[in-house]
Amino acid sequence: MPKIVANALGPSPLEENLRRLTDEVGGRMTGSPAMSRAVAWAVAAFRQAGVDEVRAEKYTIPLSWSEGATRLEVLMPAPFPMRLVSVGWAPPTPAAGLEANLVDIGEGSEADFARAGASAKGAILLAHSEIGKTWEDLFNEYLRAPVIINRAVKSGAGAILWMSTRERGLLYRHQNTLTGELDRLPQAIVAREDAQRLARFLAAGEKVRVRLVMPNRVGGPAEQENVVAEIRGREKPDEYVILGAHLDSWELGTGALDNGCNAALVIEAARVIHATGLRPRR
Amino acid sequence: MPKIVANALGPSPLEENLRRLTDEVGGRMTGSPAMSRAVAWAVAAFRQAGVDEVRAEKYTIPLSWSEGATRLEVLMPAPFPMRLVSVGWAPPTPAAGLEANLVDIGEGSEADFARAGASAKGAILLAHSEIGKTWEDLFNEYLRAPVIINRAVKSGAGAILWMSTRERGLLYRHQNTLTGELDRLPQAIVAREDAQRLARFLAAGEKVRVRLVMPNRVGGPAEQENVVAEIRGREKPDEYVILGAHLDSWELGTGALDNGCNAALVIEAARVIHATGLRPRR
Repeated sequence: MPKIVANALGPSPLEENLRRLTDEVGGRMTGSPAMSRAVAWAVAAFRQAGVDEVRAEKYTIPLSWSEGATRLEVLMPAPFPMRLVSVGWAPPTPAAGLEANLVDIGEGSEADFARAGASAKGAILLAHSEIGKTWEDLFNEYLRAPVIINRAVKSGAGAILWMSTRERGLLYRHQNTLTGELDRLPQAIVAREDAQRLARFLAAGEKVRVRLVMPNRVGGPAEQENVVAEIRGREKPDEYVILGAHLDSWELGTGALDNGCNAALVIEAARVIHATGLRPRR
Repeated sequence: MPKIVANALGPSPLEENLRRLTDEVGGRMTGSPAMSRAVAWAVAAFRQAGVDEVRAEKYTIPLSWSEGATRLEVLMPAPFPMRLVSVGWAPPTPAAGLEANLVDIGEGSEADFARAGASAKGAILLAHSEIGKTWEDLFNEYLRAPVIINRAVKSGAGAILWMSTRERGLLYRHQNTLTGELDRLPQAIVAREDAQRLARFLAAGEKVRVRLVMPNRVGGPAEQENVVAEIRGREKPDEYVILGAHLDSWELGTGALDNGCNAALVIEAARVIHATGLRPRR
């Protein structure tokens, strides 16, 4: 153990390795060319770390998805710039966009939808949010969306605009489907300040008409790769201790925290084990 | 005075008035259609406030300027998304953009330029910044730019990219000319995180080649309007006490703080004076 700690605390390629993944490969969405570069990065880095074997294992995702040039045109009361991105795996709008009235559904509760009534039908809904600061807020953000989408689908809405949970124009993208299928409605995350500006128009009793253009590209089944490296055990080479991290990230940032640092850490663990000359039992 | 205070503290159209200027008119750059709407807003609001007279007085600006679709393409080492805007009154690049090597000139001191040497010629320069938090930082930001532009022009540089002084992708636009003339070099403000990513490539010894496309539109002399309202004095109607605020703003935001609140406050002061029934001496 002291040998491992000494090695882990010594000079390390970890930081430079992570810089290459985040700065040079950058955001790496599953299905993107950047993701292929990330796989090549991981294979090379594991080799450098001195593992017994490293390979890229193919698997298939049922659908590939990438974002086109998402935009929201405010037709009434006046045009102004809007910052937004599509929600992950949201279906595209028609090519010319979806033009509709904007309806504020507040927090998106049953009561909110009851209040909106028939006006939600065919409309683009605006869903408010609290500012996200804690882990609880984050999971609340994940958990509330499917319930609201259910209500939106039932009410016949055309699309949903989600107010970003981050301030100052920051957009935090995730997805509301976990099955590899397309989402049920076009949805975008709108910069908090821009969404609040829309909400103030509606609160002032003004009619807001918008056109949401979201030319997301959806493809058929696509082959992807996981990177698997092995240090074989000295006593039980057919048993496994697995250390893993996801390598992909959204392309809004460089995926340093989620999850580059952990991907680089798995490689670093392999390097340190190899560098000590110790061989694990399994 | 108690009468004025009571009126000022009573029910007021100030907030709704400011909402209309910031949300409905929004960003209002001199020379833009939004600026004409802002003038109409101010004229109507002064009328509503009950002043004796309100008029829009024409004046001419030597040049009109507006931003096209500014973009920075990173050609080497790899393409990735960049968030940036043109500096105010910066000249446009050629239509196809300006393709050049990126050269880091750090803080832009004489020593920095000496270090860059001949590599600055024809290059696009990257100028670092501190995070701006205080008034002093703000004025430092205004004052350092002209000096660095001088050095850049002397070194034969093609353009300057300024690292934004705000974090998290926020862009803070101003201009480095105060004479109504075009600036001497194309310049853009790049999101801090994006600029730092470029700087890390250069620090790692990689060659960075970029294309800056900045199709800014520059027009000839243009007529603009100041809004002037009067409450005539009871004793010396030909003398003046002037209360003023600039009405224009950049179009990156809605110009609430700079300077909508003060524009609305001038109108509110007129309303309160009128509402008290008091008539000032001059």
